[in-house]
Amino acid sequence: MVSKNQIKTITSLQQKKYRKQYKLFFAEGIKVVQELLNSNFELHQLFTTQEIFTGLDNSRVELIAEAELKKISALATPNVCLALFVMPEEKPVPDNGLIVALDDVRDPGNLGTIIRLCDWFGISHLVCSEQCVDVFNPKVVQATMGSITRVNVVYTDLEAYLDKTSLPIFGTFMDGENIYSESLPENGIIVMGNEANGISKPIEYKVGHKIAIPRFGNLQQTESLNVATAASIILSEFRRNFSGK
Amino acid sequence: MVSKNQIKTITSLQQKKYRKQYKLFFAEGIKVVQELLNSNFELHQLFTTQEIFTGLDNSRVELIAEAELKKISALATPNVCLALFVMPEEKPVPDNGLIVALDDVRDPGNLGTIIRLCDWFGISHLVCSEQCVDVFNPKVVQATMGSITRVNVVYTDLEAYLDKTSLPIFGTFMDGENIYSESLPENGIIVMGNEANGISKPIEYKVGHKIAIPRFGNLQQTESLNVATAASIILSEFRRNFSGK
Repeated sequence: MVSKNQIKTITSLQQKKYRKQYKLFFAEGIKVVQELLNSNFELHQLFTTQEIFTGLDNSRVELIAEAELKKISALATPNVCLALFVMPEEKPVPDNGLIVALDDVRDPGNLGTIIRLCDWFGISHLVCSEQCVDVFNPKVVQATMGSITRVNVVYTDLEAYLDKTSLPIFGTFMDGENIYSESLPENGIIVMGNEANGISKPIEYKVGHKIAIPRFGNLQQTESLNVATAASIILSEFRRNFSGK
Repeated sequence: MVSKNQIKTITSLQQKKYRKQYKLFFAEGIKVVQELLNSNFELHQLFTTQEIFTGLDNSRVELIAEAELKKISALATPNVCLALFVMPEEKPVPDNGLIVALDDVRDPGNLGTIIRLCDWFGISHLVCSEQCVDVFNPKVVQATMGSITRVNVVYTDLEAYLDKTSLPIFGTFMDGENIYSESLPENGIIVMGNEANGISKPIEYKVGHKIAIPRFGNLQQTESLNVATAASIILSEFRRNFSGK
């Protein structure tokens, strides 16, 4: 049984303000919930229409009806379960290794895809400007497919962060150097920009290494690449030379 | 003024059945509509709330109210205009160059992103299995951002198509060869598989060259890459050696 108060609290977690207040976020669907349960994220409460989860503290599991799941879900088609987790603390970002930094990335699907890419390419830290979409937005959580448990996402003043680092800073620009002929290092910061406007001026000044993905289509007409597909090509280029290690 | 009949016809075009029947599809928003108007696609009718399009046959343009646009739009937030275009004929696919083939790709966003990638990497032909989402689905049209006018998308029996080609056939598999150490040709077919199941068995038998994108994260846990991000890495790898040409 889900109480009216619980429904109110859970649906309020679709908003960042209430996630900050309760220090909770939620995930839905067997696949993503199972990934979170298998991680070191702390379960607050699991609501499920099927008894399919084992080894959990029973006081934290509530068996509910499908009609009740529909009331708390953010999905058009709710999928078996919804779980509340405690928002983990941000971990410090070391000043070594390969790090991705996002300047004002707003689309939840893009952030989710980039977190999944970081996970794939063994990048443990993602630094976001304060204007980026919140990582605990339910759409981001779904899009990460569990990668959210393996990538430390930190929100900060990106300009100040880039001022302090000793790592080389890379960013994509139309007039950058052909990424295919650059010798890319194992350690550095890769900045990706906003969906519509790319990297902002204040951040551009911090980028020491401007790179570009060459186009092969009609130069007059081809649109720019989506930020997540551009990120996948760039991360692949940074890693490809070290793939034998 | 949009008549009741027009509303009925336009909203019916959200379904493939009616698009085939009327041989029409629609696009929305200034950016995408402008790209289609600039292409050799044939305008059937343009509905707009602002007189911002010039040089068009006036009999094909209707100035309408925002409330009317809302009635014909497929978007939650309609954006200035909606235009009907004649569905272009599929063009024959030559047996040379680099070609992308999709085996049962269902998500409109993924197909749209892959068309945009083909456009970026100068790939003019995309071969889809009959089970793939329709390219004239409004969500696909929006996601291509105009690239739909520059890539020839053909639906066919993929098995039969791959049987007939003389080009080498590449596909991504978990146990494939490290794509970073393969010597990739300028001509060939790159097969990408379904979102949940990858490349199907009948198609797998046709793939002569199995490749893989190496992972750098925790091998036990990392999820597979999304089909569109995997496609971006693979297309980039095929093109990178020819980027100076």
